[in-house]
Amino acid sequence: MKKILILGAGLSSSSLIKYLLDHSEKFDWKIKLGDMSLETAKRKIENHKNGEAFTFDIFNETQRNDEIKQADVVISMLPARFHYLAAEKCVEYGKDMVTASYVSKEINAMHDKALAKNILLLNEIGVDPGIDHMSAMKVIDEIKAKGGEMISFKSNTGGLVAPEYDNNPWNYKFTWNPRNVVVAGQSVAQYIDHGQLKYIPYQKLFTRTEKMSVLDMGEFEMYLNRDSLSYREVYGLKSIPTLLRGTLRRPGYCAGWNVFVQLGATDDTYVVENSANMTYRDFTNSFLPHDDKDTVEQKLAKYLGIDIKSETMKRLEWLGIFEKRKIDLPNATPAQILQKLLEEKWALGPSDKDMIVMQHQFEYKLKGKTKRITSSLVVKGKDTVHTAMAITVGIPMAIATKLLLTGVITKKGVVIPIIKDVYEPVLKELEEFGINFIEEEQDLD
Amino acid sequence: MKKILILGAGLSSSSLIKYLLDHSEKFDWKIKLGDMSLETAKRKIENHKNGEAFTFDIFNETQRNDEIKQADVVISMLPARFHYLAAEKCVEYGKDMVTASYVSKEINAMHDKALAKNILLLNEIGVDPGIDHMSAMKVIDEIKAKGGEMISFKSNTGGLVAPEYDNNPWNYKFTWNPRNVVVAGQSVAQYIDHGQLKYIPYQKLFTRTEKMSVLDMGEFEMYLNRDSLSYREVYGLKSIPTLLRGTLRRPGYCAGWNVFVQLGATDDTYVVENSANMTYRDFTNSFLPHDDKDTVEQKLAKYLGIDIKSETMKRLEWLGIFEKRKIDLPNATPAQILQKLLEEKWALGPSDKDMIVMQHQFEYKLKGKTKRITSSLVVKGKDTVHTAMAITVGIPMAIATKLLLTGVITKKGVVIPIIKDVYEPVLKELEEFGINFIEEEQDLD
Repeated sequence: MKKILILGAGLSSSSLIKYLLDHSEKFDWKIKLGDMSLETAKRKIENHKNGEAFTFDIFNETQRNDEIKQADVVISMLPARFHYLAAEKCVEYGKDMVTASYVSKEINAMHDKALAKNILLLNEIGVDPGIDHMSAMKVIDEIKAKGGEMISFKSNTGGLVAPEYDNNPWNYKFTWNPRNVVVAGQSVAQYIDHGQLKYIPYQKLFTRTEKMSVLDMGEFEMYLNRDSLSYREVYGLKSIPTLLRGTLRRPGYCAGWNVFVQLGATDDTYVVENSANMTYRDFTNSFLPHDDKDTVEQKLAKYLGIDIKSETMKRLEWLGIFEKRKIDLPNATPAQILQKLLEEKWALGPSDKDMIVMQHQFEYKLKGKTKRITSSLVVKGKDTVHTAMAITVGIPMAIATKLLLTGVITKKGVVIPIIKDVYEPVLKELEEFGINFIEEEQDLD
Repeated sequence: MKKILILGAGLSSSSLIKYLLDHSEKFDWKIKLGDMSLETAKRKIENHKNGEAFTFDIFNETQRNDEIKQADVVISMLPARFHYLAAEKCVEYGKDMVTASYVSKEINAMHDKALAKNILLLNEIGVDPGIDHMSAMKVIDEIKAKGGEMISFKSNTGGLVAPEYDNNPWNYKFTWNPRNVVVAGQSVAQYIDHGQLKYIPYQKLFTRTEKMSVLDMGEFEMYLNRDSLSYREVYGLKSIPTLLRGTLRRPGYCAGWNVFVQLGATDDTYVVENSANMTYRDFTNSFLPHDDKDTVEQKLAKYLGIDIKSETMKRLEWLGIFEKRKIDLPNATPAQILQKLLEEKWALGPSDKDMIVMQHQFEYKLKGKTKRITSSLVVKGKDTVHTAMAITVGIPMAIATKLLLTGVITKKGVVIPIIKDVYEPVLKELEEFGINFIEEEQDLD
């Protein structure tokens, strides 16, 4: 019997846990699920005979030691900044570990120790990062294998509301941490385009969008992610002339969001005086010059050069930023005030379903010809528990855990799933869960 | 005999040191001037018989103890972040201290200890902060004394090149730390206007300017300083409906600077890849979208909605941001690259003179009438040693030091010069140095 220890039973762990419980009989697994809330952990285990819920506190070192010592593999679903606390113990006791988060500095520094202990610290095996790495590397490796030369790689991912439940003028609902959406893009976006390094500051990010369509899902627009340049090294594309990664939204979203950026309403660095007693209209007005004659709506439209009858203005009005309604949130930053309003308006309803959309565009030269491969994925949520986000984050982690327990994945050290030995079997099994990419190829000459 | 210890012999200390040496005979002072560079300290003392230069290292605690123990008063001209190291010893040994910097958290926390030791830690007694506080409080106290109610206070200061030496299209040269100019305004500007709190993010700061004229010095434009709200408490104007503080530049400067803000060229948070080998033209292009057809100039003009024949474009061209000239600065941030270019172009020449311009506008109600007092100051530099900056920073400090050594200033604890007992005698003597405000009053009804 193998013991799997899962730390954290949050929203994104549902599909992971279900997969592991569903396969526990066949593979003789015992699954221990620890969370700060015993209730939450119990709800996910659902009295399964191979599952056990318990109260877990990552800051309790004794408990951390005891639990990790007894496990064969540890899956950390904790907030990303706490993974290293578990990873330290995994290294100490020689246990494999799996996370869906970016490799932190702390974990990266454990590579040699992990090799010495002959264990695997597998990270970035969720959706983004995770499925994006695996599906990209599969195509890149295929292009290289047939002698192609990569000249452009663009990769875009979005977590959105499924079209059937898409009923607001922003065509967006929160399917993930709202705070991350509010402060998204506040570091410079770095990419390379036709051999030229490009940097986009926050104040221009949501104006530098590109339109694109994905399969039969209609139109999207993308804004650039923080750091595309580092992916040249990750994907073995050091001298590629064009590489960029972006986030997908529906058309119009970015122009609307840019209003908040220009106003300064996403700033999280200072507290607005008297935020509890001001109204949303006061809040909006606090970013606009004083003017006795114009309404707040007129001032905003003039200030930002927006037509007062535009779709953008309608989106803003729908959100309620002009309402004389009390904010009722003391000592709040602009970002926190905006988040409070958005959480009311962009909440995913109890019968709503979410959707993950991903598209890679690869351009390469082969025997003097230029070709493009487009590889697209759409995953819709099943319900509010097994959301597209929970499925695409959790299933790759679960599959990888199975593959390492069954000896298919044998790589050691700090690893991300860009090597064939990892991505090939994981992608293969993902197809059984409806997570499969549609590839289209065309000649560009 | 009284011993005055001056720590730091940098550019801004010249006029301070001269004043103290000039008055040393009459008041029986001995002046010790310590600096990391003995040469620099010696050059300022000029073999004066009451002066002594020595090598001083603020991080040498033994030396710090010895020197401060022997002094009667300590004047710190060190970088602002090091003042507290001297202040701690002043409190320990019961010595008065004078600085021209904002009260830091560390120094603020020493108030009770300073009172217990019966010493004065006098801060913010340079030009800005310093002369601004004193000249504003004088008028505010006068208005209050005659029963007036303050309804608006606007205060603007600029360090600029004197008109006779103003010969570039930006009408600006560096008269102070260039780095501070490049990163100016990167925190939100907070003020109050007609009773409404106002916040301006960096991306809008240089577009929200106001034009104004000062005496016979011609036209200026102002952009807002970081935090005007805290001055309500400092100046005893807690319920004033309008209060703002700004920085003065010549017209057109802010529109030009806004280009750098919008491009992202003032960002100091990341390193530009290969900055040593790229040209200034590459640097400018790195902030613009890829486009095969347009020149960098055309792209920039289109991107930011500027007429390619405008004065702003001429200012940019004059600076050389489109030149195919190597930057030659490895591992540099955008802000560092921009600073390197500006230091070449905006350097104050060996025969150039600088200028300090300050203007307060006070509006108040008295017996049902609304009045405005405008209080303006222009100080021009004498030469490259006794610049307007050195004079306006150093002379108030020197006067205050004399006044406390002669028992005129008797206040103890952590103090800034907003109290009549301090500002009145200092302002009076400043007039002898040509630092005098011109007051104009008008009825607004």
